[in-house]
Amino acid sequence: MNDTLTIAGRAYRSRLLVGTGKYKDLDETRRAIESSGAEIVTVAVRRTNIGQNANEPNLLDVIPPSTYTILPNTAGCYTADDAVRTCRLARELLDGHDLVKLEVLGDAKTLYPDVPATLEAAKTLVADGFKVMVYTSDDPILCKRLEDLGCVAVMPLAAPIGSGLGIQNKYNILTIVENAKVPILVDAGVGTASDAAIAMELGCDGVLMNTAIAEAKDPVLMAGAMRKAIEAGRDAYRAGRMPRRRFASASSPVEGLPY
Amino acid sequence: MNDTLTIAGRAYRSRLLVGTGKYKDLDETRRAIESSGAEIVTVAVRRTNIGQNANEPNLLDVIPPSTYTILPNTAGCYTADDAVRTCRLARELLDGHDLVKLEVLGDAKTLYPDVPATLEAAKTLVADGFKVMVYTSDDPILCKRLEDLGCVAVMPLAAPIGSGLGIQNKYNILTIVENAKVPILVDAGVGTASDAAIAMELGCDGVLMNTAIAEAKDPVLMAGAMRKAIEAGRDAYRAGRMPRRRFASASSPVEGLPY
Amino acid sequence: MNDTLTIAGRAYRSRLLVGTGKYKDLDETRRAIESSGAEIVTVAVRRTNIGQNANEPNLLDVIPPSTYTILPNTAGCYTADDAVRTCRLARELLDGHDLVKLEVLGDAKTLYPDVPATLEAAKTLVADGFKVMVYTSDDPILCKRLEDLGCVAVMPLAAPIGSGLGIQNKYNILTIVENAKVPILVDAGVGTASDAAIAMELGCDGVLMNTAIAEAKDPVLMAGAMRKAIEAGRDAYRAGRMPRRRFASASSPVEGLPY
Amino acid sequence: MNDTLTIAGRAYRSRLLVGTGKYKDLDETRRAIESSGAEIVTVAVRRTNIGQNANEPNLLDVIPPSTYTILPNTAGCYTADDAVRTCRLARELLDGHDLVKLEVLGDAKTLYPDVPATLEAAKTLVADGFKVMVYTSDDPILCKRLEDLGCVAVMPLAAPIGSGLGIQNKYNILTIVENAKVPILVDAGVGTASDAAIAMELGCDGVLMNTAIAEAKDPVLMAGAMRKAIEAGRDAYRAGRMPRRRFASASSPVEGLPY
Repeated sequence: MNDTLTIAGRAYRSRLLVGTGKYKDLDETRRAIESSGAEIVTVAVRRTNIGQNANEPNLLDVIPPSTYTILPNTAGCYTADDAVRTCRLARELLDGHDLVKLEVLGDAKTLYPDVPATLEAAKTLVADGFKVMVYTSDDPILCKRLEDLGCVAVMPLAAPIGSGLGIQNKYNILTIVENAKVPILVDAGVGTASDAAIAMELGCDGVLMNTAIAEAKDPVLMAGAMRKAIEAGRDAYRAGRMPRRRFASASSPVEGLPY
Repeated sequence: MNDTLTIAGRAYRSRLLVGTGKYKDLDETRRAIESSGAEIVTVAVRRTNIGQNANEPNLLDVIPPSTYTILPNTAGCYTADDAVRTCRLARELLDGHDLVKLEVLGDAKTLYPDVPATLEAAKTLVADGFKVMVYTSDDPILCKRLEDLGCVAVMPLAAPIGSGLGIQNKYNILTIVENAKVPILVDAGVGTASDAAIAMELGCDGVLMNTAIAEAKDPVLMAGAMRKAIEAGRDAYRAGRMPRRRFASASSPVEGLPY
Repeated sequence: MNDTLTIAGRAYRSRLLVGTGKYKDLDETRRAIESSGAEIVTVAVRRTNIGQNANEPNLLDVIPPSTYTILPNTAGCYTADDAVRTCRLARELLDGHDLVKLEVLGDAKTLYPDVPATLEAAKTLVADGFKVMVYTSDDPILCKRLEDLGCVAVMPLAAPIGSGLGIQNKYNILTIVENAKVPILVDAGVGTASDAAIAMELGCDGVLMNTAIAEAKDPVLMAGAMRKAIEAGRDAYRAGRMPRRRFASASSPVEGLPY
Repeated sequence: MNDTLTIAGRAYRSRLLVGTGKYKDLDETRRAIESSGAEIVTVAVRRTNIGQNANEPNLLDVIPPSTYTILPNTAGCYTADDAVRTCRLARELLDGHDLVKLEVLGDAKTLYPDVPATLEAAKTLVADGFKVMVYTSDDPILCKRLEDLGCVAVMPLAAPIGSGLGIQNKYNILTIVENAKVPILVDAGVGTASDAAIAMELGCDGVLMNTAIAEAKDPVLMAGAMRKAIEAGRDAYRAGRMPRRRFASASSPVEGLPY
């Protein structure tokens, strides 16, 4: 299998990870996820029934763990303790499944991470045997520290969760990628297909998104667009793009310009 | 056939048009073009042997007109007369083929079009029965005028030919698309996959490129990346992207900001 | 006098040119213009009374030609003939004053120039003895041609008139400046102070604006901000900015990046 | 005194703070700082003689504390302990002066802050009676936390120290400003005059810079450009800029566009 994404020892063909929130109904959720080609699907344990409520529709009926790698996440947690507790609940509900996505939020307006609490929770979870994929800001120093703590993937935001603004600080993402030995996945902020392609062209190993698909007018079509965009960006990264220059002539570089 | 691109009455599945210059050899040319999925291939009549020189390798042996729509172009022409003459030569060489790509260049440094000469040549060619696809600047007024003159497709530049800088003026491209009744194809300036996706997300009907593929480290892989990027951007455009907002909360629009 | 702007043989200390439209009243017009430090003030002959209507308030009473260089412009003209006629009317009203700003508009939506009509009108006006400053698109080839026709200053747009979007295509403005032997003034599209500074940092000789001042909440304060921004940008251009690099270390250039 | 910047209870007319590194000699340092109009001058205690070495030239001879507010900084410190110790040394050398600029660096490549160590050092210094201005990343959550710890000013980076790249994430700076009750000063990353103006237009209370002035070809002229740019940006912010729109017509907003 060529050019796979390996997380916590397991190889995936798809580099697009998707969420399950904000869809019209479970059927649309299922169809969009199928169209996306995603193999890893993240689930907000605090908002989604994955078995906590025996008499209600269970997401895992349409996203079966036999087909997908379920990635429980701690969306909605504002303290390290809450996030750790939520991961443990998920592990119980999913029969010992230890791959989790950690997010500890700093406030309800920006949904930016609380970085010190994220570091603390990551340390506790790694010590407790979890394989931690971690949502964080795009600070290269913190991303490296989370890797050093033993996280299996680091997931910097491109822009605020649910904003659709695209990658705000390409230099930071590039620096994070250059420094990393674990997969770097852009998490949050992608709005449309080209945003996803840019993340991959910067050398990211994958992209996780939810709103950009679920809030498109046609989520199923957008999910397919994202699948192609991730592949396009990855292939362009591997193919090695032409240099940027002002004009076709070889001697017209863009460096040294006044802006 | 769904969502096809129709130019001069003929429908195409692919929205990626490619050139034939700058490849290592004819075999690489052929493999890259196959990987791109392009159905329309443009050929610089003044630089490429399509039958003028009977004893030299003929591009049409690897890009056969039975498989591809050959689009002769007037690259290297700096006057209306030269461009018109070149189109007529192409029509002879190609047995009455009347679809051409007109470009009349303004200077050899920028390779920007000479707009008045382009208007003049377009008028002459349309009167002479040609179906004219026309390279021009990204000026919305001129693009509309070229349409009014009878051109079958208008092809504004995204950035200088061979620069790889990506779309410099998105507002102009958007305005050109909004005003148009004929296909608008971005011609020149694309550097990598996301640039192509952005062109399609703006509503363009297609993209023509050459250097971005031919000068990639791996042209064949990049050609495939471009094919996917064009499809991704087109599908994202049709799917209707989510609104951009500062934060996930509904009441955080980006308008009215100080920048 | 150091670092002056010379147009048609006359030297100016200020590189900010301003319009007179959209103000609350003539008193606000006067105070904003004084605050801007402008020495050249442009007047739309078709919309402003500079003597055509003897019984109405005359703009020249608050913007006296003894203090300011009055620059009649052809705003609202959509044909070469109209523009030429308007310039001749202005010359009469202003006792033989021959410095004019030519604009021939392409449509009422974008207010983009009609480039062929602009070329035609420029030729006629130069032959008729006018000193022509000319509004045009940011196409480097056309800007050079207007200079070659004898225009005394070329004024490419940064963005549509009245949009406040700032400079959309910095590469084009830079190329226009590099090619020019007459003053290049950005005309139209500036929205706030930094936009004006950027124009000057790109090497422009000056900036003309109206809406950005007149539609600010406090036009008089904004006029002063623009005066300082123009000086700041000019001085930064002359001072020679530091190179852009990714990090402080000397060996971290920005060229060769994937975006 | 109108529109002053108040830090730790003291009002300043200038909103431009400057460093003292990288100049050719002390005379150029003095002339550039005079040209900048700065009233607060930051000094790297570990690299600059402000009295530690009795027999060497003392920076305070050309930047006298009677004229300037000296702001000792902890550049070059990579741990909280080092930074705290450096601040205490500065307080001794400067006779009890308690205003300091805290920076705890994360690595020598990026010069990004070590955020957990910065939080720790800030807490210690505030408890020890210092008035702490603090260099940090542009993370809105962390900026607020540093304010809550009692810092008198928060100084997010615009881009890496010494890069000259300008503000990379305008949304973050805007959010930091919106949330703050203490002054927000952009620290690091400004490259030319317009970058400084943009920081002020976003609502920042001031800007600190060093390389952009010291590494200009003409540092004294650039210092004056920066003074004007800061004033221009501040005045534009106070004047209230015009709305951005696609065209002059009132009904052409930029929101809702596909990019």
